[in-house]
Amino acid sequence: MSTKGTLYLVGIGPGSEAHMTDAARAAIAAADVVIGYVTYLRLVADLTAGKTIIKKGMTEEIDRAQEAIAYARRGHTVALISSGDVGIYGMAGPTFEALLASGWRPDAEADIQVEVVPGVTALSAVAALVGAPLTHDFCAISLSDLLTPWPVIARRIAAAAAADFVVALYNPKSGRRTQQIVEAQWLLLQHRASTTPVAIVKSAYRKRQQIQMTTLAEMAECEIGMLSTVLVGNSNTFVAHGKMVTPRGYGNKYAADGTPLPGERPAHSLSQGLSGTIAAIQTSPASNEALAAQLQLPLAYIERLRTLSPHPSTSGDDR
Amino acid sequence: MSTKGTLYLVGIGPGSEAHMTDAARAAIAAADVVIGYVTYLRLVADLTAGKTIIKKGMTEEIDRAQEAIAYARRGHTVALISSGDVGIYGMAGPTFEALLASGWRPDAEADIQVEVVPGVTALSAVAALVGAPLTHDFCAISLSDLLTPWPVIARRIAAAAAADFVVALYNPKSGRRTQQIVEAQWLLLQHRASTTPVAIVKSAYRKRQQIQMTTLAEMAECEIGMLSTVLVGNSNTFVAHGKMVTPRGYGNKYAADGTPLPGERPAHSLSQGLSGTIAAIQTSPASNEALAAQLQLPLAYIERLRTLSPHPSTSGDDR
Repeated sequence: MSTKGTLYLVGIGPGSEAHMTDAARAAIAAADVVIGYVTYLRLVADLTAGKTIIKKGMTEEIDRAQEAIAYARRGHTVALISSGDVGIYGMAGPTFEALLASGWRPDAEADIQVEVVPGVTALSAVAALVGAPLTHDFCAISLSDLLTPWPVIARRIAAAAAADFVVALYNPKSGRRTQQIVEAQWLLLQHRASTTPVAIVKSAYRKRQQIQMTTLAEMAECEIGMLSTVLVGNSNTFVAHGKMVTPRGYGNKYAADGTPLPGERPAHSLSQGLSGTIAAIQTSPASNEALAAQLQLPLAYIERLRTLSPHPSTSGDDR
Repeated sequence: MSTKGTLYLVGIGPGSEAHMTDAARAAIAAADVVIGYVTYLRLVADLTAGKTIIKKGMTEEIDRAQEAIAYARRGHTVALISSGDVGIYGMAGPTFEALLASGWRPDAEADIQVEVVPGVTALSAVAALVGAPLTHDFCAISLSDLLTPWPVIARRIAAAAAADFVVALYNPKSGRRTQQIVEAQWLLLQHRASTTPVAIVKSAYRKRQQIQMTTLAEMAECEIGMLSTVLVGNSNTFVAHGKMVTPRGYGNKYAADGTPLPGERPAHSLSQGLSGTIAAIQTSPASNEALAAQLQLPLAYIERLRTLSPHPSTSGDDR
């Protein structure tokens, strides 16, 4: 009899079973040992009857990883669960670190077979509940400074604010960690209007789901906790009749009646796309410094575009 | 008989049915009309027998939205599908824009009930297939310049590179749009080592799935197409034995044997967390300018932290 174990790293989705994938359900069904944070185990209680259940506290990630590995090494089939996507701020990272440190190698001879089962992450769940705020570029930043130095977090918030990303804040606040969201608000307000739409969703798709639609100016005064995710819009995000939407940019190319604007062609790069930008920079009488300031791009990048050879494939359709 | 229609905006996940949620499957089952890009409809062909199927081309997003709305307005139950998460660069955005422009309001009297069903987005799928690269802050940037001016895209890449985000590049390349990935590589290389791990995954969880593990230096020479997603690691991301991992930062707090480093306490903010950073800045003899340069933070933010009153809740545990 084989003593090989299997370790599934499972993202169970935001919380309701309806938003779990079949692969996640199948992994939990196949497991004889299920390990996770106590709140997440409660969410999948219907699926775990008769199995060995190992409940862990919030900050015991390394314990969770080590215990999951130990069970798998004894030949068990183990499901280590995280809410949302197990790969996004979830258990996949610490577990691979612990596995690799223990000498495990991902090959056919490995004593443990490992599979990551992705899930619907919190930012997708929050977005679905409030409209369509993620139709353009976004970033995810955790405000937890338990393992990440604050200057790293602040630097990322400042960069995301300046470059006009929609920003999803994970772990925005806890009982004692209350000032981080105020700092995030301050940094975002340096680049974004106080009226910028913000959605705060607690326990998405769970019984105690709570949705607050607010603005960047009011954000830090709202009810925010460990089970909340905060979505801050970019400079184009709007709220209309309760729906938060970040336009993809059809207005850059089409008039309201759907006809292309002058110089634009359907299915082709925007006139200010890469080739248009290169042409404009190469023919501009302005200095590199002036162009860098105007376009908010690094000076070195303007210098590069000035000298780049025209390329046959810098624009065109996507077929 | 009610003539009210229902419009489900459905994220079908990366491609295999196992990674679809029950809610997505239920929405397609409930629909009598299913609309989507032809490739996505093929992925759910098992679920759509007997239904009205409306296939659209790649760049016909507005057509798709308008047709879905028109069917719903005639009382049909419509599923408009996107691969991955319908809210992330998917159909949720253009559809809400079109709905709101047509006078639709999201209330009980609305002629169309709308529900967004989130899915597993491409970056989660890619991450699951290569290890755990998203265990720390990340951003998603689309390289398509069909609707977004290139300077906006370039500015975001530059900001993400400088602030050390893991970067997921959506729509990295198409048949004619081949230079954008070269530009992204150049911008990332200004801040990140040429050895930075990069994963390129094509058709995740589909029949023609292809995984390439490479480096930032080699990235642009790899096979990349419309069905690829590219994940670029941050400065701490490593590849060991084929697994790509971004550490969460346990090494900032714990020695290899699991004991806390001097000055650190489990379940409490890092000593260089927010309160530690404030204390260090307030007691530093260095100039604000020197601190801003050293910490890579805006000067105005250093000035703020210099004068911020000590706050009882800037650190502490998360229970």
